[in-house]
Amino acid sequence: MGLFRSLLLLLALSAVASASPFHSLLRAVPEDPAPGRSADGEGVADRLFCDSWRLSVETNDAGYWRTIPQKCLKFVEDYVNGDHYASDFDVISSESLSFAETVPIAGDGKDVWIFDIDETLLSNVPYYAINGYGSQVFNETSFDEWVDLARAPALPASLRLYEELIGLGFQMVLLTGRSENQRNSTEKNLLYAGYHSWITLILRQTSDLGKPALVYKSERRADLEAQGFRIHGNSGDQWSDLLGLPLAKRSFKLPNPMYYID
Amino acid sequence: MGLFRSLLLLLALSAVASASPFHSLLRAVPEDPAPGRSADGEGVADRLFCDSWRLSVETNDAGYWRTIPQKCLKFVEDYVNGDHYASDFDVISSESLSFAETVPIAGDGKDVWIFDIDETLLSNVPYYAINGYGSQVFNETSFDEWVDLARAPALPASLRLYEELIGLGFQMVLLTGRSENQRNSTEKNLLYAGYHSWITLILRQTSDLGKPALVYKSERRADLEAQGFRIHGNSGDQWSDLLGLPLAKRSFKLPNPMYYID
Repeated sequence: MGLFRSLLLLLALSAVASASPFHSLLRAVPEDPAPGRSADGEGVADRLFCDSWRLSVETNDAGYWRTIPQKCLKFVEDYVNGDHYASDFDVISSESLSFAETVPIAGDGKDVWIFDIDETLLSNVPYYAINGYGSQVFNETSFDEWVDLARAPALPASLRLYEELIGLGFQMVLLTGRSENQRNSTEKNLLYAGYHSWITLILRQTSDLGKPALVYKSERRADLEAQGFRIHGNSGDQWSDLLGLPLAKRSFKLPNPMYYID
Repeated sequence: MGLFRSLLLLLALSAVASASPFHSLLRAVPEDPAPGRSADGEGVADRLFCDSWRLSVETNDAGYWRTIPQKCLKFVEDYVNGDHYASDFDVISSESLSFAETVPIAGDGKDVWIFDIDETLLSNVPYYAINGYGSQVFNETSFDEWVDLARAPALPASLRLYEELIGLGFQMVLLTGRSENQRNSTEKNLLYAGYHSWITLILRQTSDLGKPALVYKSERRADLEAQGFRIHGNSGDQWSDLLGLPLAKRSFKLPNPMYYID
């Protein structure tokens, strides 16, 4: 990557670090997650719409979408940088753990939990902060440059869950849409963010290029089952991380209002 | 959606049904996984938690739950009586209509849209308002008395969508967990609320009693397909309205933070 762009990214990264939910708590709790009946300003109406749009994204009602609604830029920015996003992760992690605690661990090293990486274990909010929070069409070149920096922070609730699952005896499998040629930077970033002890990191091979994520990830889960692994949990921010055969016993959809991968 | 993806989803979702994340796991909702780090008032922290809990319910991350968290009573009350619930319905209805407009209607009367009834076409909020908004365990006797009154109002966005779908040429199929002996009061209530022209109202028969909703509803969708109907859309407030084989081409999860049916 060009030195200038690298520098820009690094500068941007340090600039947004202080606004990130992971380093400080500059943002207040949303004024009112349920604005009630008295909305009369356009800002309030937009926020109400954007919050409903966000729900429809998370339930997959929205189906495929390419960019966030332009009028939701501020809403998405506030959400991913504020307590709301962190709280959503906290609750889902807690529900994941509640399920995990009911799973009998055989002790043969075959009890698996799958994690996606981007917006699941690692946060790319610092990247999206300088790329319009999903309001701009995805730019693979600049995103790959960001990946190479290997400086994405952990999503704190995911890191906590990850450690707890290891403590319960689960094997960690990381299944990502990133490419094999990003293995080094991905491993470096995972370690930088505090992750460790995964038994396998599965990336897209040349033969996977062009496959829908849902197909590629389902195939890799099938491989795992063929190797005798029992897939108890699967955590991902995209429905394409979770749907398709074989399924995990329980799948956990994490929030992501910035982009949609099908 | 491509046929391949549709097939994958079909397979996946039938596996979801048999993998039974929806049938088991009787457990309490976590007390408070998100203590609200920056919140200085308990109300704000609770509201943040409750809004995250609501998201996890709508994505099915929460799995089975019996009553709402006690501390979310006011939150749920405000939500279902406020603009937020209506806005969520508006956005999902709009997305449903956007999809519907892409469906070619053959004109042979076989192009179907399925609606659930309770919390989908009709609102039981007046009943839940005097029964703790889901904070109390479901009382079938008192709910059946409410059904007999046949005075549940329409959910406005659903009534609008219903009319628009008829205008586009879809046939309306109503598929409800209510029992055959509630047919008269249900028809009366639907007409009272403004619904009309459905081609069939499917209720639980004696042979369906005790079946999980997901199984019962999937069987009825299979019957419809066997009769030559093409199920394009399916709208319901419960995942058990939507999952299981055969699937509609698109399923639309409507919000319901008051109760969970598996």
